[in-house]
Amino acid sequence: MASIIDGKKIAEDRILEIKSNIEKLKKDHNLIPGLAVVLVGDDPASRTYVNSKEKKCKEVGIYSEVHRLPESITELELLKIVEDLNNNEKIHGILVQLPLPKHINEDTINEHISYEKDVDGFHPVNIGNLQLKRPSFVPCTPKGIIELIKSTGTTIQGKNAVVVGRSNIVGLPTSMLLLNENATVTICHSKTQNLKDTILKADIIVSATGIAGLITGDMVKQDAVVIDAGIIRVGDTMVGDVLYDDVLQKAGFITPVPGGVGPMTIAMLMQNTYEAALKCV
Amino acid sequence: MASIIDGKKIAEDRILEIKSNIEKLKKDHNLIPGLAVVLVGDDPASRTYVNSKEKKCKEVGIYSEVHRLPESITELELLKIVEDLNNNEKIHGILVQLPLPKHINEDTINEHISYEKDVDGFHPVNIGNLQLKRPSFVPCTPKGIIELIKSTGTTIQGKNAVVVGRSNIVGLPTSMLLLNENATVTICHSKTQNLKDTILKADIIVSATGIAGLITGDMVKQDAVVIDAGIIRVGDTMVGDVLYDDVLQKAGFITPVPGGVGPMTIAMLMQNTYEAALKCV
Repeated sequence: MASIIDGKKIAEDRILEIKSNIEKLKKDHNLIPGLAVVLVGDDPASRTYVNSKEKKCKEVGIYSEVHRLPESITELELLKIVEDLNNNEKIHGILVQLPLPKHINEDTINEHISYEKDVDGFHPVNIGNLQLKRPSFVPCTPKGIIELIKSTGTTIQGKNAVVVGRSNIVGLPTSMLLLNENATVTICHSKTQNLKDTILKADIIVSATGIAGLITGDMVKQDAVVIDAGIIRVGDTMVGDVLYDDVLQKAGFITPVPGGVGPMTIAMLMQNTYEAALKCV
Repeated sequence: MASIIDGKKIAEDRILEIKSNIEKLKKDHNLIPGLAVVLVGDDPASRTYVNSKEKKCKEVGIYSEVHRLPESITELELLKIVEDLNNNEKIHGILVQLPLPKHINEDTINEHISYEKDVDGFHPVNIGNLQLKRPSFVPCTPKGIIELIKSTGTTIQGKNAVVVGRSNIVGLPTSMLLLNENATVTICHSKTQNLKDTILKADIIVSATGIAGLITGDMVKQDAVVIDAGIIRVGDTMVGDVLYDDVLQKAGFITPVPGGVGPMTIAMLMQNTYEAALKCV
């Protein structure tokens, strides 16, 4: 029976730590970290995410601005807003909530955010620097995943880690971080032919596919660390990629959904914004 | 008994194709691709590499300049030279031969090369864009490796590919390219604990460690495609990572050293320079 990794509790502890660091930054350098969140349109899920980011900023002492923009905004107008935020000295981190409406190119927008304010870590320069093991903003979910793995006391070095899913937001950067921690990393995806055999070799499994219940108990090695980065709405509840009750019997450690990876993501966003401000000291 | 992948022949064919494309570029657009190679100090191996690049440029019709600079040059002086080349309209590709003397930071120099002239593909923006599957300059050796694998007629999609070595120049970009071709990719390195077991699962093996004879026949699955990107001088001869005579008995396809990956690397440099010029049309 697996130990449950309490992401909510771990995130709360990190939030307290970040809050105290921010207080110190204010006291020592009279500097208040600032985060700008740009929300286009009124997708209900995006609105919820943005609200919780705003709330969390208040909690830790980050100045935040939310730019709520109509669905009809043009790419050029949005670029202008990003440009203004790039030049705004009160703002250390900029986050454009995805997805954007179809008439706006997400790549163009992400690339226009100054890579020094790119607290989401989606800019090509930050992605390149992460691979080069150079200082960079690390995407929030992957950064949180590594902290959750470490919270179990597991040594990552030399372990077989399997990442299922290769998105730019979760799968790929998580693979790079695990590699930087000296795991042997296998990246699986929709074209992988022998998913079960591959996952069965893993000491550490990170799943980030958005396919509910993809990872079942028979695919998991006894006592593996299982991190579930999936979050799928099924009726009124949220489930993950991992068939929880089933895998719980096999894994050594497991994250629940909700209450696992999710709370860490927002804590890491606060951490990245703090780090962005720290660079201005 | 494996079929031998004749990298020399495949590279020669590619060179003919590139030469013909360059002739067309001259005829249609009056544009001659230009490559600047910067060589600092007089490391004999680097000198040899630079000379063969210069020779190959002449062969395909690329205008080339070699800037041979003394070991004593300062980082600032070198940055100034790179800056001038960035602004030189005759030059479409810039390559600073590595390694640089210890008093010069290679990252600083690589990052100073305009990413639009970075035909080596080492700039963070190009590395980030490769991972994002966006247009970018792909490092020459990895690009050549993919062509060699494809030359065998092997379908990469869905195959298990194992890359041994995680350098920024070969291992990591090769892993990204194999992933972009939809292989299931495992990245092994010096901290990997079960190298033999992992490699035995591979349909495609790429080794880029510089450890002579690391890959032996008993580590290779019957009929696997084995690409040897190692090149190690042993006395008067060059050997690779792969114990050639041994693995020859097991593999389906194998690259020799020399005459495998090496000739493709320089062909891909010509290709990247051609592509850099093409962007100016």
